[in-house]
Amino acid sequence: MVFTAPQGRLYTNSYMAENFENSVGIVKTQTIRIVETDSPLSLTCGKELGPIDVAYETYGEINDTGDNVILICHALSGNAHVAGKNDPEDKKPGWWDTMVGPGKNIDTNKYFVICSNFLGGCSGTTGPSSVNPVTGTPYGLDFPIITIADMVKVQKLMLDKLGIKQLLAVIGGSIGGMQVLQWAIDYPDFVKAVIPVATTSHLGAQSIAFDAVGRNAILADSNFANGQYHQGPAPAHGLGIARMIGHITYLSEQGMREKFGRELRTSDDYRYDLDPEFSVETYLDYKGQTFVERFDANSYLYITKAADYFDLKKEYDGLENAFANAKSRFLIVSFSSDWLFTPAQSEAIVNALVTNRKDVSFCDIHSSYGHDAFLLETEKLGKFISCFLQATYDPESCSKCNCSKKSDISKPRERVDYELIEALIPQEASVLDVGCGDGELLIHLKKDKNIRAEGIDLQRNSVLNCVCKGLPVIQYDIERGFSAYDDKSIDVVILSQTLQTLKDPEKVFTELLRIGKKVIVSFPNFANWRCRLQLLTKGKAPVTRGLPFGWHNTPNLHVVSLKDFEQFCKKLGVTIEKRFPLKEYRLSPVKLAPNFFAEQAIYVTSKD
Amino acid sequence: MVFTAPQGRLYTNSYMAENFENSVGIVKTQTIRIVETDSPLSLTCGKELGPIDVAYETYGEINDTGDNVILICHALSGNAHVAGKNDPEDKKPGWWDTMVGPGKNIDTNKYFVICSNFLGGCSGTTGPSSVNPVTGTPYGLDFPIITIADMVKVQKLMLDKLGIKQLLAVIGGSIGGMQVLQWAIDYPDFVKAVIPVATTSHLGAQSIAFDAVGRNAILADSNFANGQYHQGPAPAHGLGIARMIGHITYLSEQGMREKFGRELRTSDDYRYDLDPEFSVETYLDYKGQTFVERFDANSYLYITKAADYFDLKKEYDGLENAFANAKSRFLIVSFSSDWLFTPAQSEAIVNALVTNRKDVSFCDIHSSYGHDAFLLETEKLGKFISCFLQATYDPESCSKCNCSKKSDISKPRERVDYELIEALIPQEASVLDVGCGDGELLIHLKKDKNIRAEGIDLQRNSVLNCVCKGLPVIQYDIERGFSAYDDKSIDVVILSQTLQTLKDPEKVFTELLRIGKKVIVSFPNFANWRCRLQLLTKGKAPVTRGLPFGWHNTPNLHVVSLKDFEQFCKKLGVTIEKRFPLKEYRLSPVKLAPNFFAEQAIYVTSKD
Repeated sequence: MVFTAPQGRLYTNSYMAENFENSVGIVKTQTIRIVETDSPLSLTCGKELGPIDVAYETYGEINDTGDNVILICHALSGNAHVAGKNDPEDKKPGWWDTMVGPGKNIDTNKYFVICSNFLGGCSGTTGPSSVNPVTGTPYGLDFPIITIADMVKVQKLMLDKLGIKQLLAVIGGSIGGMQVLQWAIDYPDFVKAVIPVATTSHLGAQSIAFDAVGRNAILADSNFANGQYHQGPAPAHGLGIARMIGHITYLSEQGMREKFGRELRTSDDYRYDLDPEFSVETYLDYKGQTFVERFDANSYLYITKAADYFDLKKEYDGLENAFANAKSRFLIVSFSSDWLFTPAQSEAIVNALVTNRKDVSFCDIHSSYGHDAFLLETEKLGKFISCFLQATYDPESCSKCNCSKKSDISKPRERVDYELIEALIPQEASVLDVGCGDGELLIHLKKDKNIRAEGIDLQRNSVLNCVCKGLPVIQYDIERGFSAYDDKSIDVVILSQTLQTLKDPEKVFTELLRIGKKVIVSFPNFANWRCRLQLLTKGKAPVTRGLPFGWHNTPNLHVVSLKDFEQFCKKLGVTIEKRFPLKEYRLSPVKLAPNFFAEQAIYVTSKD
Repeated sequence: MVFTAPQGRLYTNSYMAENFENSVGIVKTQTIRIVETDSPLSLTCGKELGPIDVAYETYGEINDTGDNVILICHALSGNAHVAGKNDPEDKKPGWWDTMVGPGKNIDTNKYFVICSNFLGGCSGTTGPSSVNPVTGTPYGLDFPIITIADMVKVQKLMLDKLGIKQLLAVIGGSIGGMQVLQWAIDYPDFVKAVIPVATTSHLGAQSIAFDAVGRNAILADSNFANGQYHQGPAPAHGLGIARMIGHITYLSEQGMREKFGRELRTSDDYRYDLDPEFSVETYLDYKGQTFVERFDANSYLYITKAADYFDLKKEYDGLENAFANAKSRFLIVSFSSDWLFTPAQSEAIVNALVTNRKDVSFCDIHSSYGHDAFLLETEKLGKFISCFLQATYDPESCSKCNCSKKSDISKPRERVDYELIEALIPQEASVLDVGCGDGELLIHLKKDKNIRAEGIDLQRNSVLNCVCKGLPVIQYDIERGFSAYDDKSIDVVILSQTLQTLKDPEKVFTELLRIGKKVIVSFPNFANWRCRLQLLTKGKAPVTRGLPFGWHNTPNLHVVSLKDFEQFCKKLGVTIEKRFPLKEYRLSPVKLAPNFFAEQAIYVTSKD
């Protein structure tokens, strides 16, 4: 339960003997001075700050090689207290107790977990409410403006001081996710994997606007006293209003509707006065009031300003450049109803990583919880985190994981399709499997051909299965195009049994030919003799082994034959390099009248 | 330029001789006392209020029969000054000058337009800043709580006093739209048509929350003085913050992004202080400040509370009941990016009206302007309003209107299809045409068979063309189902040349069979001999006269033959009452081997 820092000093692990079920038990927040007064830290804004103390908690034990350390970064109103209780009498455990603990998704039996209160906070780490050594009173507005990069720099100094030499992963949601992104950029060799959740590379105008109104409310509070309110009453009204605004942005419209609707607090009838009477009003009032008790108004100003300033695109002259030197594996997660940091904002990060050819997986989790989903969707989010951590920590362990079940891809591949496609892929090629399902083909190709694998799939479960196998896979609808991939950036793109299910096959095929040096396409042959015969003699939409669906419930939105496809290629100026008309389970191509006898076909195509 | 009220008193029309181009010119806001002190008005809250003065403006001239009067209802921060200028030196014209004027979409050459400041406002009509006759000082918080119904009651009293006997239409957006809905409910015989735009039958939890935070900010302002701030400084900070919050909800995320992005006001570099520096911040500051100059904080409290209280579902024990006695024609318009009063909230109103079998048209206009679109999308919105007004005012005039152009429905009907379907419809039947396009079939049926017509279409242009023809038509995707229609509420539902283009034909067909006593379905026959021959001999996806598309760009997502459809009906337990296999342009059905020779087929189906 102890680990030794290089300075030889002994740090007591805060994971205590007293254990709750599945809980890390009683933990103690510790404080460490990482910057001394006489050697202050240079901040992004150009000013210097010192001393700097950092409050942190740890859970689990570091292993002998020190490769099991996970850093968690908290969001606006969070703190170092992630899991367990600080006191047995505490009513609530830490803010991510559902995620962190023995046997939980961030498993403290396996990993050593650290979280620190960030710079500028008000829960033990140096911030505007700390004493300014120059004046002997709290900094207030004399505290220098801080940035997300400053927060990360302080975290790194803390880890150095604790003797941590590497991080298995950095994980965080919202503003925590911004820190995670900054970690990947600033310390590429220190961090094996990063998991930015429900975050963004920059706030949009709407989010800045909400932050600005919140700050306005604090600054307009008559108790604010230019930030020196520490002797008198706190600017509670202003901070409360700021928190209420924030809280609305953390929930989704649907979530609020389901939780509160138009319910009245006390009666079925309107009171006809101006007091709060809808449940949602009293809930927000309560949220505002309780926040005021535990949070510092100046910290709110500084942290929201740091978030507003965070802009990787501006900082690095383009989001692609920001990640150019990143070395970590990325798992990006967004939530469908998050309108503060939207799925589209996560996708922008994913795209920049794809353009940089980084190891990135992405999932947009369906949820009605809005931005708060990163705290509430523990089960869905936790599975991704746990699988991704496991695949990073011990890549060979995937087979033992029970997540690797059959994916829900609508039509399983035929082995014959598989084997032939495998044979067509060169050693060590980069391969993008579009509609990769559970990643079986990519895993085989990785093992047999040592390819650089990546996948795209629409289904969340498929993404999870691939993440679990250590494959980079992106949840994405290829019908939207994929401009993040540069021209000819992939050796081989695979589109297996998917062409005929697309709304716009021409658009997608053209896009894949742009991305890939070669595109391997397979599809069922509608001009197979069985189809012809059925239409001719029965006068019905054919239902065959290769096309097993009824006319009204088929996932195949288009009927296509070998001849149709070949004319299509001609029209698009596409070169057909190889063609494999196939019959049943035979690997050898159909030679005689292939458009008549083949049940499916595989084509290797390319376009300059 | 004058009209005579029944009392014999002469009201000067505020439309003055001095005309700007396309402007109503210089107008004067007038005031009329509609409730005397000694005979106060009973309000919804149970209290009484008197005297009540109303500020209003009028534009255009009332005609001899008095059937060209349009009432416009304004939104939260609006007033009676809709169009023109009150003073030649005014920098800006009235708030809807783009919509109202000679030759504009609400044409003052044709219509007589009235708008009054609503009860509780601060622009001339009695409100919290008016003098309380009991105390001789402004009401402040002694003003009684008012409701949307109270506002409407006051508008009606004003019209009575002005001698207006009927309204051609009531039009309004946002809170104005709530008044419009209330008009249709409270005075069904007085109002021929209503156009509620960007509105809702009730605020959801999120909107109430935003209103509540805004009110909190006003109430928390140290200058608020319990509402009696009229002698001292106004609660400008609080009202400014409330306005800023409101303003964010009026814009869409996309709109803000496009308008402001992360642009800085003065420099390319961050200033690293807490002052507003993003353009969006300074814009909101400006909006807050200018609002404070022209608006009363108490009015803001009362009006937002009236909006929060507005709940037709609660008031009438179900939204359907609210509209049970409505007699007006309805044109409901929402905007795609409006997240304050969403398209779904407009659809809920539409559904309640559909359930009540009312004359309702609906369009969701694509816009990035958010809620503010009702003020900004003048062209798109104006076309709908102008056509709807015209079709209501003079139903015979449609043919003269240039809006009635070909709609953009992908596949025009064949005349043969038309004529046969017409022959199948009984006199005076109620007919729902699903995918009605430009409404040609419905118009023919209306003329020849005197049917009760209604349509559904996906395309905005189709809806516009139908509205212009006086047809009730709803912009809607039938694949979502349509539970608003009661079982067997329509005599004949038509699904012409659409079945095969649906993602889920079974779901839609089943839903239409539930709604309609009979469903007429037509589709192209995939088992026509040309198709069979082409697939057999050419080995290609057939391209024929009836199925003229290539395999990859066809809108037909399913291939279906007569035999397929008949088996499908059998599976679903659907009775085929009549069948018309058709060939080319011949009206007489194919008798010999219809599944082989017919190019298309029309079926009359039903299901108990």
